[in-house]
Amino acid sequence: MTAVTGYEPALRAPSAELGRPRVGHIDFLNCLPLFWGLARTGSLLDLDLHRDSPERLSDALVAGELDISPISVMEYLRHADDLVVLPDIAVGADGPVMSCLLLSKVPLEELDGVPLARTTSSRTTVRLAELLLTESIGVKPEYFDCPPDLPTMMAGAPAAVVIGDAALRASLQQADTFGFQVYDLAEMWREWTGLPFVFAVFAARREFVAEHPELVREVHSGFLKSRELFLDEIDVVCRKAARWAKFDVETLKRYYLSALDFDLGERQLAGLREFARRVGGADAGFAPDLRIHLLETGRTS
Amino acid sequence: MTAVTGYEPALRAPSAELGRPRVGHIDFLNCLPLFWGLARTGSLLDLDLHRDSPERLSDALVAGELDISPISVMEYLRHADDLVVLPDIAVGADGPVMSCLLLSKVPLEELDGVPLARTTSSRTTVRLAELLLTESIGVKPEYFDCPPDLPTMMAGAPAAVVIGDAALRASLQQADTFGFQVYDLAEMWREWTGLPFVFAVFAARREFVAEHPELVREVHSGFLKSRELFLDEIDVVCRKAARWAKFDVETLKRYYLSALDFDLGERQLAGLREFARRVGGADAGFAPDLRIHLLETGRTS
Repeated sequence: MTAVTGYEPALRAPSAELGRPRVGHIDFLNCLPLFWGLARTGSLLDLDLHRDSPERLSDALVAGELDISPISVMEYLRHADDLVVLPDIAVGADGPVMSCLLLSKVPLEELDGVPLARTTSSRTTVRLAELLLTESIGVKPEYFDCPPDLPTMMAGAPAAVVIGDAALRASLQQADTFGFQVYDLAEMWREWTGLPFVFAVFAARREFVAEHPELVREVHSGFLKSRELFLDEIDVVCRKAARWAKFDVETLKRYYLSALDFDLGERQLAGLREFARRVGGADAGFAPDLRIHLLETGRTS
Repeated sequence: MTAVTGYEPALRAPSAELGRPRVGHIDFLNCLPLFWGLARTGSLLDLDLHRDSPERLSDALVAGELDISPISVMEYLRHADDLVVLPDIAVGADGPVMSCLLLSKVPLEELDGVPLARTTSSRTTVRLAELLLTESIGVKPEYFDCPPDLPTMMAGAPAAVVIGDAALRASLQQADTFGFQVYDLAEMWREWTGLPFVFAVFAARREFVAEHPELVREVHSGFLKSRELFLDEIDVVCRKAARWAKFDVETLKRYYLSALDFDLGERQLAGLREFARRVGGADAGFAPDLRIHLLETGRTS
C-alpha cells in the first residue's frame, strides 16, 4: 500500500506504483499537435503528464524524473547515449520557421566584433545563429547574454537573436518597420545546408525503453495519431488557440502548416546529424559523429 | 512583451498575460468526471491547468495562486468568505462512499478512550469520523495521527479512519476478512442526518469572480458538460481507467455511478450546511452559520 494524499474520497493517483509513463508536456502552441489528439481521444489518461517549461523538462528527462519528453536538440545531443529518439515526430522547420530570428540593424557581413544580444533561454537557436554567422557569413560578433526582451536587446546592441512571440511578430511584419532586418535562422540553415533544422526531439530514456518497449511504442503511436487528428481539426484548434494566443486564426494556421515541421524522417535526421557534425566537439560536450538511437517501431521507414 | 522561455521555436505559454483561468486539477479518479469531457472536447485549451495534490490545490486556491479549484470542505469552510462555490457539481456521496471508512476491531460503542489511528492527510473525513463518534455514537476515542498505511494503523490501534484505495478495497470485501468491521462514514452520516455528505466543492476566488464573471460561468458550464460526456462514455472511461487504477471496470463503474455523488443541489447544500453547523465554532475556524456564496449562473435551480 502506498501513501494516500488528499481530500476524501481521494483514490490515489496511481502513476508511481502502476507505471503510467511520465511524459513531459509543454503547455500550448508548440506541443499542441502532440497533445490535442491525446486529449480528444481520452488517451491522456494513459500518461502521467508533467507540464513544465522546456528547459525544466529537458533537465527532468536527463535526470530520470521523466520517461519520455520533448527535449531541446542541444540538450539531446549532450545526452544522446542515454536517450532513444521517437521517430517521425519532432519540432523543426524545413524553411522559414518565423519564430527563431536574427534581427540586425546592419548587414550581417558587418557584424564582426559588433555586440550581439542573445537570449539565455534558447541554447539551440543561439548555437544555430552563432554557427551560421561564423561559418556561413564569416563574422564573429561579441555575444552577450540578455533577458529575452526585444526592446532591451535592441537598445544594447545592433543585433539580437530572438525567439517566440516577439520573433513571430517581427516575422509577420517582415519589412524593416522596426529599423532592422529580419533573418529567419531556419531558412538560413536550409539555404546553407539544403536540410531541415530540428529544434527539439521527443525522446525516451534508454533504460525505460529497455524495460517497457511496448509502452514506449504505444506512447509514440499515440503521438502520431494525435498529430493526425490535430491536422484533421486544424481549423477548430486554431480558433480555440487564437482566443488566448495573441495571434489570429490565419497566422496560427500558417505557423502550424507552413512554418513548423513536425516530422522526423530521413531528411530531418540528416539535418540533425549535420548540426551535430558542425557544432560537436569537446566544447559542446558531444562528439560530431555521435550515434542517434532511434526507437524501433517495427515499421519500415 | 514578456519573457520567452524554452527551446525554440517556443511560443510563450500565454496563460499569465492573456488570462486563461488558472484551474486546479487532481490527477485521475476523482476528478475524472470533470476533466474527461474537457479533454474530449478540446476545452482544456481554455484552462491553465495546474495538477497537484488535493492539499496543495486547496492551499493554492486560498493563497490566490489558482482562480478555480477543487477544495476540501474543511478548507473551504475556513475560507468561505473569500470563495464562491460552483453550483451543481462537487465530490460527495448520498449513501455509502466506499472510500472513506472507519475500521474497527471492536463495536463502535466500545471505542471510548481507545486508541484510534487517523490519517493526517484527510481532515474532512477525520472530522466527520470524530463528529459521528462523539455525537452519534457517544464515544471519545484517543485519536493519534498516523501515516495513511492500513497495516501500520491497525497494528497500533483497534480502530482507524482510512481513505482511498485501501478503504475501497476494504469496502469491496465488506466481510470481516481482516478481523475488523467496516463502517462507511458517508453512509453513517446519511443515516444520522438524512443528508448527503460533501467531501469537496469546486470554488473560485471571490475577487476573480467579481473581475471575470463570464469566464467563471464558462468554466462552470464546461465542468457540467464534461460530467455529462463522462456519464455518456462511462464504459470507455472505466475501461481506460481500469488499466492503471488497480480496480476492475465494474468496480470503477460502481464507484462512479453508485458511490460518488457529483451533484451539488439543494440536498447536498443542506448536507454541507449541516456539517458546518455541527463542526463550526472558534476551534474550527469558521462560524456554524457561515454564509455559502454560490456562483450566480443565471439559471433557476
